[in-house]
Amino acid sequence: MLLAPSIQPFFPPQRTLMGPGPSDVYPQVLAAQAKPTIGHLDPLFVGMMDELKSLIKYAYQTTNAMTLAVSAPGSAGMETCFVNLVEPGEKVIVCRNGVFGDRMRQNVERMGAIAVVVDNEWGEAVDVDALESALKAHPDAKFVAFVHAETSTGALSDAKALCTLAKRHDCLTIVDAVTSLGGVELRVDDWGIDAVYAGSQKCLSCVPGLSPVSFSPAAVEKLKSRKTPVQSWFLDQSLVMGYWSGEGKRSYHHTAPVNALYALHESLRLLAEEGLEAAWQRHQDQHWALRQGLEELGLKFVVPEEVRLPQLNTVLIPEGVDDAQVRQRLLQEYNLEIGAGLGAFAGKAWRIGLMGYGAKRENVSLCLKALADVLN
Amino acid sequence: MLLAPSIQPFFPPQRTLMGPGPSDVYPQVLAAQAKPTIGHLDPLFVGMMDELKSLIKYAYQTTNAMTLAVSAPGSAGMETCFVNLVEPGEKVIVCRNGVFGDRMRQNVERMGAIAVVVDNEWGEAVDVDALESALKAHPDAKFVAFVHAETSTGALSDAKALCTLAKRHDCLTIVDAVTSLGGVELRVDDWGIDAVYAGSQKCLSCVPGLSPVSFSPAAVEKLKSRKTPVQSWFLDQSLVMGYWSGEGKRSYHHTAPVNALYALHESLRLLAEEGLEAAWQRHQDQHWALRQGLEELGLKFVVPEEVRLPQLNTVLIPEGVDDAQVRQRLLQEYNLEIGAGLGAFAGKAWRIGLMGYGAKRENVSLCLKALADVLN
Repeated sequence: MLLAPSIQPFFPPQRTLMGPGPSDVYPQVLAAQAKPTIGHLDPLFVGMMDELKSLIKYAYQTTNAMTLAVSAPGSAGMETCFVNLVEPGEKVIVCRNGVFGDRMRQNVERMGAIAVVVDNEWGEAVDVDALESALKAHPDAKFVAFVHAETSTGALSDAKALCTLAKRHDCLTIVDAVTSLGGVELRVDDWGIDAVYAGSQKCLSCVPGLSPVSFSPAAVEKLKSRKTPVQSWFLDQSLVMGYWSGEGKRSYHHTAPVNALYALHESLRLLAEEGLEAAWQRHQDQHWALRQGLEELGLKFVVPEEVRLPQLNTVLIPEGVDDAQVRQRLLQEYNLEIGAGLGAFAGKAWRIGLMGYGAKRENVSLCLKALADVLN
Repeated sequence: MLLAPSIQPFFPPQRTLMGPGPSDVYPQVLAAQAKPTIGHLDPLFVGMMDELKSLIKYAYQTTNAMTLAVSAPGSAGMETCFVNLVEPGEKVIVCRNGVFGDRMRQNVERMGAIAVVVDNEWGEAVDVDALESALKAHPDAKFVAFVHAETSTGALSDAKALCTLAKRHDCLTIVDAVTSLGGVELRVDDWGIDAVYAGSQKCLSCVPGLSPVSFSPAAVEKLKSRKTPVQSWFLDQSLVMGYWSGEGKRSYHHTAPVNALYALHESLRLLAEEGLEAAWQRHQDQHWALRQGLEELGLKFVVPEEVRLPQLNTVLIPEGVDDAQVRQRLLQEYNLEIGAGLGAFAGKAWRIGLMGYGAKRENVSLCLKALADVLN
């Protein structure tokens, strides 16, 4: 026998999470998650899942029947959208202005479809005109995919304009709302989004690990008309939907992450209680307060003002400042986490999150004072 | 705006879970899960993941470096093994003696590989001789896949013999240990298992949603020599391993399900504290007590005695007894969940689980008394 390792219980400290996610989790959500596990086919659990569906619909502002939470993180939500809707050989125009647009390209290529990449500079919004040129140059494209709120840069793209344009060229749209859901305006039905996915750990302030997704009737139509099976059994939406269906004929697919779904239910319930528009405004208000303080510290934003995400503030690291040391001191001396730069911004920028429960005055104040202390 | 649904907090009852999983969760595990969320790149979290890796290795009795927890349920663990190791066009011998063997076949076929199915009756163990005939008939097969403990039937297969045979024919082995891990003897290194996956929600008595997996050096070799990219970005083990690597150069892949991993850490820690052999024995002891009581009630086991799983007891529903009504009464009157039959056994059998924390005397007694009351 290999011997048992001797390991003590893990006691994480209480941090203030102001990175790009996970964000500070609502105490009510942590408590919800610790409630007794019940069976995933228990009638009471099925009822909870039905409520959860209606809460996800509200957060997305959609009436889409095919709305549920993928039992895995946001990147599995992304993959769910691509592998269900796109078939090998089909063409997808992928707008890329950061890490997550590039992840979309990798998804498309790995599944044997064709990615046409429309590039924008890091920190910019996706350029609507550049997309239009690509759509004209590729009349056989069937999909347009883009990131609504780029977590790697903090830039917000005009999802409504991009979707309107895609529709005009008969393309379905696949939209990454991982960082936008709950933090800025997002209207899936009004804007004509066909497939959307998000993450539980950003502006919903739920624990990480789940991905709410929603497919429009047109997306469902495309799914139903596939000529090839979906390559992934685990992510096959037709099977998963049979499990989430509220029509009394629930069919077993996998075992739902019961306690994590309790947590998502509670976080979305809190969002519904506050109201979406109030939550969007709160993020904006706290962003203004943080912005003013950061500028007083002499820090410069990476993203142009008009497309800046309130929930993710990317600022340039001042000349001569040691990136890792600052973040380490914030963590060790203040229990405060801010995010490092990712990809092209590694070592060059910090990402300061104001997400969900964390978009509040005390977090802004702590961050500003701690940064002021550490930078001086 | 679509209006916010008015939904109350969800308060699940305290059930006793004696189905095929999720099983009763250790109170310490629920408490661990509710600890404060910290960043997934926080040095303290990275340290916790390193401990978790060593705990998974112990539970599997392996020294495999490529050992980690997939951030999704057991069926994603299954898919991880197939999509990383098998390439399109390669041949996999799939032993099928229940629902989960068939799920393996579906995985193989969806990814464009060739499944050769070796069938056994439901309730039987996988037949070693039948596998040998298949191996002789298909000398070009590169993999043998089977389920160690079939959750749909309660039958245990001889993993050691099957793996020895597969090795002799130069095949790598992919083994489903979803229901076996922690409940019956399982020795990944000694038995020559090349890829193995499990679920958090069975004999580990953790919350559902995670899948510990381990790849042998030979499996890693196969992975490295692939000619085609892994079809799934989310499940690509080379990328995921970069995230789990303890060598200080941790690279971002996805956001780990932080709190769920706290839970897995605690459940595996409790297993290590008890000791694997003691846990196996406890499952066996409680099985004997349950078995005696069920037989006194006149219930008959589906699976032959010599291959019966202690942690999952499948009994035939007596003639004239209303399946759904019995399970409903147990749930409503006793807060006790037992499992329905699945697939070929739907409506014909019950599956009574004694898994992990649930493999204890009070559960056996409750189940026997409640069944006696309801059946009379």
